[in-house]
Amino acid sequence: MIIIMKNSATTQQIAQVVARVERDGFTAHLSQGEERTIIGVIGDDRPIDRSIYELYEGVEKTVPILKKFKLASRDFQPEVSQFRVGGVKIGGKELVIMAGPCAVEGRTKLLEIAHAVKEAGANCLRGGAFKPRTSPYAFQGMGEEGLEILAEAREQTGLPIVTEVMSTEQVPLVAKYADILQIGARNCQNYALLTAVGKSGHPALLKRGMATTIEEWLMSAEYMLAQGNRRVMMCERGIRTFETATRNTADINALAVLKHLTHLPIAFDPSHATGKWEYVLPVARAGVAAGADCLLVEVHQHPAEAWSDGAQSLTPERFHTLVTQTHAVAAAIGRA
Amino acid sequence: MIIIMKNSATTQQIAQVVARVERDGFTAHLSQGEERTIIGVIGDDRPIDRSIYELYEGVEKTVPILKKFKLASRDFQPEVSQFRVGGVKIGGKELVIMAGPCAVEGRTKLLEIAHAVKEAGANCLRGGAFKPRTSPYAFQGMGEEGLEILAEAREQTGLPIVTEVMSTEQVPLVAKYADILQIGARNCQNYALLTAVGKSGHPALLKRGMATTIEEWLMSAEYMLAQGNRRVMMCERGIRTFETATRNTADINALAVLKHLTHLPIAFDPSHATGKWEYVLPVARAGVAAGADCLLVEVHQHPAEAWSDGAQSLTPERFHTLVTQTHAVAAAIGRA
Amino acid sequence: MIIIMKNSATTQQIAQVVARVERDGFTAHLSQGEERTIIGVIGDDRPIDRSIYELYEGVEKTVPILKKFKLASRDFQPEVSQFRVGGVKIGGKELVIMAGPCAVEGRTKLLEIAHAVKEAGANCLRGGAFKPRTSPYAFQGMGEEGLEILAEAREQTGLPIVTEVMSTEQVPLVAKYADILQIGARNCQNYALLTAVGKSGHPALLKRGMATTIEEWLMSAEYMLAQGNRRVMMCERGIRTFETATRNTADINALAVLKHLTHLPIAFDPSHATGKWEYVLPVARAGVAAGADCLLVEVHQHPAEAWSDGAQSLTPERFHTLVTQTHAVAAAIGRA
Amino acid sequence: MIIIMKNSATTQQIAQVVARVERDGFTAHLSQGEERTIIGVIGDDRPIDRSIYELYEGVEKTVPILKKFKLASRDFQPEVSQFRVGGVKIGGKELVIMAGPCAVEGRTKLLEIAHAVKEAGANCLRGGAFKPRTSPYAFQGMGEEGLEILAEAREQTGLPIVTEVMSTEQVPLVAKYADILQIGARNCQNYALLTAVGKSGHPALLKRGMATTIEEWLMSAEYMLAQGNRRVMMCERGIRTFETATRNTADINALAVLKHLTHLPIAFDPSHATGKWEYVLPVARAGVAAGADCLLVEVHQHPAEAWSDGAQSLTPERFHTLVTQTHAVAAAIGRA
Repeated sequence: MIIIMKNSATTQQIAQVVARVERDGFTAHLSQGEERTIIGVIGDDRPIDRSIYELYEGVEKTVPILKKFKLASRDFQPEVSQFRVGGVKIGGKELVIMAGPCAVEGRTKLLEIAHAVKEAGANCLRGGAFKPRTSPYAFQGMGEEGLEILAEAREQTGLPIVTEVMSTEQVPLVAKYADILQIGARNCQNYALLTAVGKSGHPALLKRGMATTIEEWLMSAEYMLAQGNRRVMMCERGIRTFETATRNTADINALAVLKHLTHLPIAFDPSHATGKWEYVLPVARAGVAAGADCLLVEVHQHPAEAWSDGAQSLTPERFHTLVTQTHAVAAAIGRA
Repeated sequence: MIIIMKNSATTQQIAQVVARVERDGFTAHLSQGEERTIIGVIGDDRPIDRSIYELYEGVEKTVPILKKFKLASRDFQPEVSQFRVGGVKIGGKELVIMAGPCAVEGRTKLLEIAHAVKEAGANCLRGGAFKPRTSPYAFQGMGEEGLEILAEAREQTGLPIVTEVMSTEQVPLVAKYADILQIGARNCQNYALLTAVGKSGHPALLKRGMATTIEEWLMSAEYMLAQGNRRVMMCERGIRTFETATRNTADINALAVLKHLTHLPIAFDPSHATGKWEYVLPVARAGVAAGADCLLVEVHQHPAEAWSDGAQSLTPERFHTLVTQTHAVAAAIGRA
Repeated sequence: MIIIMKNSATTQQIAQVVARVERDGFTAHLSQGEERTIIGVIGDDRPIDRSIYELYEGVEKTVPILKKFKLASRDFQPEVSQFRVGGVKIGGKELVIMAGPCAVEGRTKLLEIAHAVKEAGANCLRGGAFKPRTSPYAFQGMGEEGLEILAEAREQTGLPIVTEVMSTEQVPLVAKYADILQIGARNCQNYALLTAVGKSGHPALLKRGMATTIEEWLMSAEYMLAQGNRRVMMCERGIRTFETATRNTADINALAVLKHLTHLPIAFDPSHATGKWEYVLPVARAGVAAGADCLLVEVHQHPAEAWSDGAQSLTPERFHTLVTQTHAVAAAIGRA
Repeated sequence: MIIIMKNSATTQQIAQVVARVERDGFTAHLSQGEERTIIGVIGDDRPIDRSIYELYEGVEKTVPILKKFKLASRDFQPEVSQFRVGGVKIGGKELVIMAGPCAVEGRTKLLEIAHAVKEAGANCLRGGAFKPRTSPYAFQGMGEEGLEILAEAREQTGLPIVTEVMSTEQVPLVAKYADILQIGARNCQNYALLTAVGKSGHPALLKRGMATTIEEWLMSAEYMLAQGNRRVMMCERGIRTFETATRNTADINALAVLKHLTHLPIAFDPSHATGKWEYVLPVARAGVAAGADCLLVEVHQHPAEAWSDGAQSLTPERFHTLVTQTHAVAAAIGRA
């Protein structure tokens, strides 16, 4: 941390801040500029609430130096994390595509779409059994029955399953069936849930919250890593901005920034990031071009009959085009 | 819902949409404009995912007509909801001020600040026993011991207690001690938690999420109301925008909009909405001037020693000034 | 500026940065932390593009220390700037209310509303002769004829005139008629216009851009101040956020922040900040409670017949209520 | 436009709205739902300020049906606009890359970089002679001398020139030298400037404003189109959001949305969209993958010596890599 004093700060005010720095167990390093004095705090001040220094008379502001995340950082581990889920390697050279319906809507339909996405080129099957819905009056998911159906689809197709878990109490149940536990955007900073998923040791896919900064998002991953769970994937799914032409704004920059900051594998969800199937294909290509390791795509055999997210779901045929085109882009940038 | 067709839509495409409307159990009402045909959907289409209509050929977009929230709406209940918590009436003519430290930091300190805020004019005591922190390495709250201390403070001061609950599993425990269950900004769309708090029947204070629209926020309240819990308060605490001069951007408009849309009492938290104690006083006055029924203010006897949120905490003296000035503003606009 | 090195930075990389600091005419001050080296740059580095330092190998990021604005700063001038426009003192203890229609729509109508707002308690008359409209097909204002009508209204009522200027070429013309030149939100960073208004020496009201940070906004004021024009007022009119329930989001915090950072008088426009007349009254009260020196309010004798901004315009009767209530709030916080 | 009545609206209130619709020259079409009455307005109501209808008693809200832009719309012209600038075809199958320094910094340096970007594969030369800077104390560009240098570079390299124009008064001067007039992000809604550039008939590149919606941005293009200027290009350069890890947030979705809505060619500026050279390459690839017709890239022979935007400038070598990789992606998606 650096403490920037006001240009009106007195010697006594500076001394008081230095005294506090030392009381907190750090060393203070003064730097006298032409207009202002700056105090460098030497030591690992991550656990300190730096805002309290701003309460001292004569302090203008404080600036953090150390990144808050440790285990998620490239400093901690320079090479990209890789792990296997079923037969699929996450974080490797090969682009991984997870696809399936927004929600499990019944056994026959789910098995049908599972086979369809597999044929079209998907590596994993997605599908929600517990659904976070804005309205309490909307379909909330099939629950455990949905999980059983997903497990049956895995048996038939060999595709590993990624599905959402919404509360600490559900973790054991969902972990019993799923290969990857998805933490949804609305729960990105649900620390109780992050801790529980961390403790489960189960592979996890962490969606970015609608207004979560990249740093906060990595800190949410850190909650899981700190519990010893190293099989964590980040998933950009669009952020909320002033633009209303699309459901969310795909933060394509975030993919490049994450590659720089973290060793965790990076997924991209062009379905939620756009909200309209017409935009899913070009934006999925963009995600791969920007470096995503994995895509998460909503596919439904009859989008107009989907119980949720129909507007952003691809038909199996369109999904097949997406697989072909994104693999072409992946090849163009040197991926397998 | 209204369905707006493209200007290139054919008669057959219109017929297909009408057929779907009727299949879904509604009546279609066509309106032929100069450039476009519009289809009005007659019936309660709230439970329907209107986006699926956008998948039909020839459809440009759909527009919702009915507000999604029902029980939270002024249409459902025109007069403001009022309820008592301890001896305090929420939603009445009198301004209610809830104050206390960010977190319970120990018995002696909490009892001291409880007496101090009571003397300064507070009506309720706030204080966190379970703390949602961005970092897993930061202080996470005293847990049940913190709740016991809060209960002791209530006994001594008579002030009802408002404190945060972070997961479904904690609801029974926190409800045992607290008068009002606070749902934090990061859990504003944690539907499992909302449902559990709704079922508890306990008075609740629902903070707005950092990027939650007013309508989504009311839908989160609706989750609790739908469980039969009618003692719900909305709390504006600032939203996330591009501006970094303050921790959040106080959405003062939201207070006026809520007054218009809902009968639920409205609280305002100038501490989180600004993040700096210098700004808390003028922004608290603004909240009351805009119509807030209740203020939620962080107060600490020694902000520079606070374990969290020190920078935005008032001393008891400054809090006393806030009480005086906000009561003067309340009187100026005709409140008691 | 402070330069934060990566924890992997080598001695040679540090030496190269120091060499550059010295080549740029500054002194480098090294501070060796446990994990990182920090380089303080001693000297007035405001004119330097600090981002170039981030290009050096081993540099993680740079942090500015000095505020970019000088003449607008409280450091430069601690007391609030005051100036007279006609008989009205801006920046004084008395709340100033500027009111009138969005646009001048004709001589008779403008004279009528001018008298009406004066009677209701306005101190200045607003009205647009040049109108920035999103659509090229919409009414663009009456131009010079509108300015002549405004001047006639001033003669009849004694109210000084505030009206918008949209391009450098219009500055002499508008300055010939207006008492205060308004720079609209869309031109907040139109530096050619700011320079021209600065050179004119005419009192100016600078609206905040829809996504302009407080610091950038003060830098835009600095453009005028740097030309020797000290009669500049800041006007908060709402920023653009994700919330769509209101036209803009009133940044009430900005009023408190500006009071802290600058000596320039502060205006607040509750009409644009909300976009709906129902919300103008409570939000205007909030602006005064937060410390606004001046209000800018749209008033029209028949809002439903207004050529623009009808939805956010008050009738003279409602405006009279606003004057009464905002004066009551002003009195409650110790203003005249 | 559709007018949605409150569920409490009376027959008389509905009649008053209908009367107004008819007075405005339109036909009203009533649709009686279970909870609400809806009034469809038949006719071209684009020039009407629909907000005034919201002032009528019993009206809840209004919803626009017709898109505001006409000439920019795909409805108006289904095929993509193509035009030649020098020997370069804009809007064709071939990816066009415009590159060069942020600002012209002198004759020798500009000529050198012009040859370098040509060799590396650029099709046009960019460089600013008039620079919009946040600070009045920063370098403001070389002015006409800079334009002369750009013209000399064109003579030597054959590359057409794109450069910014900042005010109506500068239009004739800049048009004398430049092949494409750039309108910067801060002037995206400077309607006086848009009109002047429209009248000039000169090819134009319109950058998106930091908080300009896609629809507003197209309306700004419409200002130029309405003056008879059809050689207009849209340029996405990132929008302002809450995320601070990058200078702006590249709105990659906007490229897909624009392709859908407009026939105007689409450019993408990965330099401003990210603000850091490390991110320019992956994000440029993403832009091409999403469908950009053109890239605008900042290149400087010695970024660490650049007078502005050094941090986001590529060296000629890195730019060469960008050309190679973006052409590979273009080929992968079927472009020339």
